[in-house]
Amino acid sequence: MPQRILILGGGFAGMYAAREIRKRLGDSVEVELINDENYFVFQPLLPEVGAGSITALHAVSPLRFLLKGVFIRKARVHSVDQDRKVVTVFQGVQRRPTEVPYDHLIVTMGQRVDLTRTPGLTEHALTMKTLNDARRLRSHVLERLEHAEITQLPEVKKEALTFCVVGAGFSGVETVGEMKEMIDRSLKYYPNISADEVRVVLVEFADRVLGELPEKLGTYTAKKLQERGIEVMLNTGVASATGTRLITTTGEEIPTRTIVATIGNAPSKVVQDMDLPKSHGRIEVGRDLRVVGRDDIWSLGDCALIPMKEDATERADFAPPTAQFAVREARTLAKNIAAALAGKALKPFQYKSQGALASLGARRGVAQVWGMNFSGFFAWILWRAYYVSFLPGTGTKIRVLLNWLLDDLSPRSVVQASSYTPPAARYAHYRAGDRVFEKGNRADGLYTVISGQMELRYEDEDTGEVKVWNVGPGEHFGERLILGQDRRSGTVRALEDSKVLIVDREEFLKLAEGFPVLSDYFQTRMKEAYGIEWVPPANWAA
Amino acid sequence: MPQRILILGGGFAGMYAAREIRKRLGDSVEVELINDENYFVFQPLLPEVGAGSITALHAVSPLRFLLKGVFIRKARVHSVDQDRKVVTVFQGVQRRPTEVPYDHLIVTMGQRVDLTRTPGLTEHALTMKTLNDARRLRSHVLERLEHAEITQLPEVKKEALTFCVVGAGFSGVETVGEMKEMIDRSLKYYPNISADEVRVVLVEFADRVLGELPEKLGTYTAKKLQERGIEVMLNTGVASATGTRLITTTGEEIPTRTIVATIGNAPSKVVQDMDLPKSHGRIEVGRDLRVVGRDDIWSLGDCALIPMKEDATERADFAPPTAQFAVREARTLAKNIAAALAGKALKPFQYKSQGALASLGARRGVAQVWGMNFSGFFAWILWRAYYVSFLPGTGTKIRVLLNWLLDDLSPRSVVQASSYTPPAARYAHYRAGDRVFEKGNRADGLYTVISGQMELRYEDEDTGEVKVWNVGPGEHFGERLILGQDRRSGTVRALEDSKVLIVDREEFLKLAEGFPVLSDYFQTRMKEAYGIEWVPPANWAA
Repeated sequence: MPQRILILGGGFAGMYAAREIRKRLGDSVEVELINDENYFVFQPLLPEVGAGSITALHAVSPLRFLLKGVFIRKARVHSVDQDRKVVTVFQGVQRRPTEVPYDHLIVTMGQRVDLTRTPGLTEHALTMKTLNDARRLRSHVLERLEHAEITQLPEVKKEALTFCVVGAGFSGVETVGEMKEMIDRSLKYYPNISADEVRVVLVEFADRVLGELPEKLGTYTAKKLQERGIEVMLNTGVASATGTRLITTTGEEIPTRTIVATIGNAPSKVVQDMDLPKSHGRIEVGRDLRVVGRDDIWSLGDCALIPMKEDATERADFAPPTAQFAVREARTLAKNIAAALAGKALKPFQYKSQGALASLGARRGVAQVWGMNFSGFFAWILWRAYYVSFLPGTGTKIRVLLNWLLDDLSPRSVVQASSYTPPAARYAHYRAGDRVFEKGNRADGLYTVISGQMELRYEDEDTGEVKVWNVGPGEHFGERLILGQDRRSGTVRALEDSKVLIVDREEFLKLAEGFPVLSDYFQTRMKEAYGIEWVPPANWAA
Repeated sequence: MPQRILILGGGFAGMYAAREIRKRLGDSVEVELINDENYFVFQPLLPEVGAGSITALHAVSPLRFLLKGVFIRKARVHSVDQDRKVVTVFQGVQRRPTEVPYDHLIVTMGQRVDLTRTPGLTEHALTMKTLNDARRLRSHVLERLEHAEITQLPEVKKEALTFCVVGAGFSGVETVGEMKEMIDRSLKYYPNISADEVRVVLVEFADRVLGELPEKLGTYTAKKLQERGIEVMLNTGVASATGTRLITTTGEEIPTRTIVATIGNAPSKVVQDMDLPKSHGRIEVGRDLRVVGRDDIWSLGDCALIPMKEDATERADFAPPTAQFAVREARTLAKNIAAALAGKALKPFQYKSQGALASLGARRGVAQVWGMNFSGFFAWILWRAYYVSFLPGTGTKIRVLLNWLLDDLSPRSVVQASSYTPPAARYAHYRAGDRVFEKGNRADGLYTVISGQMELRYEDEDTGEVKVWNVGPGEHFGERLILGQDRRSGTVRALEDSKVLIVDREEFLKLAEGFPVLSDYFQTRMKEAYGIEWVPPANWAA
């Protein structure tokens, strides 16, 4: 029986590990790769997808194209049983869990985004980790432009035209640069928006941008971004966020409806649950990429803590979580797996970075290659050339090049193709003093207070009498919506910093149909509070 | 003050109406168009998007590109006040309703899909009306292939590899043809699926396909589809649908997880609510396209019933709901608006169809042009040429041609880029005897019975004792999920045809946090039914 090599994750580390093992060991082993999606994402291109300079399909490639001879399983990993040497997965809509056995397990699950440390950020920020994130960002920015074009409220226009990116690493810098270029190029289609109404802000906690690059390039980058009208706020973190505000740690309040967070890495849930030695959430491996204390589990890529020398302690002693390193780690891994199967000695992972590059949008880049620094147009060309050379498959290379060319020559399309529907039940944060809604506003959901305190103000249309009362945790407002009312009859503002749960009308009616306890409760409440006999819509069940 | 012409809807009728009015009247009038999306959809290309032979962005074009000088408002129409001559819209996330005044109103709201007449179809069928529908179909088909590739259950594989399209009009025929081609071309990447395991079925209530075309072409089409392995079921309707079955009116039960419904047109809600003369849900207009009895409201496209001669009574006496006609109607409308503004006489709409074309996929088509019938490769080329000539803008024309060429020359990508997440609370239908879930299955939600009857079977692991009980409307099962249990501890099947509401765990926990009445109820229930003290997760509110 051939040995079964099972790879968890299909990012740079996992995909290249599968390729290298397959290349080195051929049919002498069975290689299987499990991934959530059936494609490999070329992560460095996501900011370009987010800005529409290439289409989403050109930043990804089907794993089945890239990995001939490797068994690809599109499934969600549930858990790993290290004693029985099986991984349990959930695949398709199928509910029956499937067990996948292994002889050697390679863990390359990367990192996930965790924004829970900052109040409101999870609920109100966009992220830039997946293909869908990038598409959603593009759609979100276009929605703000569409809205700014037609609104007659100056306050709303200001919020709609302010765009904040949090974190000035590679992802943040490229996202803010590409986003600004996209907005600049789109404005000609929005005659009611003038360029000086647009505000784009990059917020960074450290005292400089692109901490991974030499200071000189960081300074150049900040200068270039500023020249293009991007505000760069250094030494600034995010204290909290709401649907219309970003509050900085320096106390500034930025009115905005767009916050892109490129910060907050955390281990994936599977890695978190695995009984393996970990440090700061990353799996501890030896220099040979074998997990410390295990002889059948290996790890590489962003989820692994890989020492680059003996007695590694400093951050610089470990491999950085970049694509460049992941690809080299995969090569070492394949050699070591082969050695392990042959009973030979393993070799330590060794690699020296060849440099780093970043695109700033608008045909400008920064690069440090073989110890030399470049900036400007040439660095941007270098960046493109480097990444194209990196793209898996000639077909993809050609398509991305064609796409880039077309983008440079033709106007940027403002089609808002990926419509994002917010969840039917969603949390929102408000700061003390924020207006939640006003009389006459469209009724967008039934609100329930999770924490904090709200003030409701209702004026009787017949008598002119004004009633004011407060609602706190566990209490509701805006429930006339369920009577079919589509305008607000009162005004609500937050008395304290508050968190609410908003439930759509349709969703509420579904739940009222499914949970008699809920519809009974609201029937009573409607009668007591408003003297209204509410009858939940019947015969949905017909 | 220039007259304000307000157009509702940005499909073929609305977009071309705006273009023609602008061309004819220039700046002498103000033209505004209101549409849900900021783009125009080239509807005839949707089946190709659904099959990935062109990318989504190539089947759409930004309204702002196409309609220079027209004010574009991306917003949802809420209602029309004909006395005050204003349209109320909801725009952006903005909650304040906006009123848009008009002197002349042009209603081109098309039709929406309504599948409610067939039990289970709304819940379990995909549609082909919007860009998102097309993307979702492609993603859905790929998901089924991914699943069929890895499942070890023959029953599941069979369901996953059976694809049904309901309705054999243009949309149904093109969808089934393109879908079959996509599957055929993708199979080489799925080594565990053999071609003879794939079943593709076209279900049509009438006794022939493509009723709009001469019988000869319909016969040719059915023959060509059958030659390519597509089953064509004529004289067959859909009686009901579940997540794994399509039941035909002839009593056949097709095990399938893919039902695409191209049937069931209904008027949009706004048209439904408008106080205008209507017949079969379509707005009654005169031959001059003015709504009967109104002098400031006009209608054209699929939402209007347009007589092509005096005393029109038969279906053939009215303009068919096709793009070809909509474009010509727009021209007549512009002339008549100009005439009305100048106080001149209006002219009746007159047009004779130049023919009809359909693509069958795999480089085959059927066409009737200027009274001549064509079929096969030539008809397919005709189809392509015709539609490319139709595409708005030279840029789009070139991109679609390039895309088609690339598709013909390169392998079809199997990237499943649009991940579809089912709603957190969703209805599902089961037929009497259906298994809902089994012990050991993944727990995918809390179930509540809306109608029907379910049998629960639970075996105590310690004592071996088996308990069987029934649950009916308003009762729940699978609620151990909320305790964090991710596998089912019992087995459930439907005793009668039933409808249930399924609520995800995360969604349930949100609601339990928001509605104390719900968490109290389940705390009591958990205690009474299972003797378990359930404490809803706290500090989400922190």
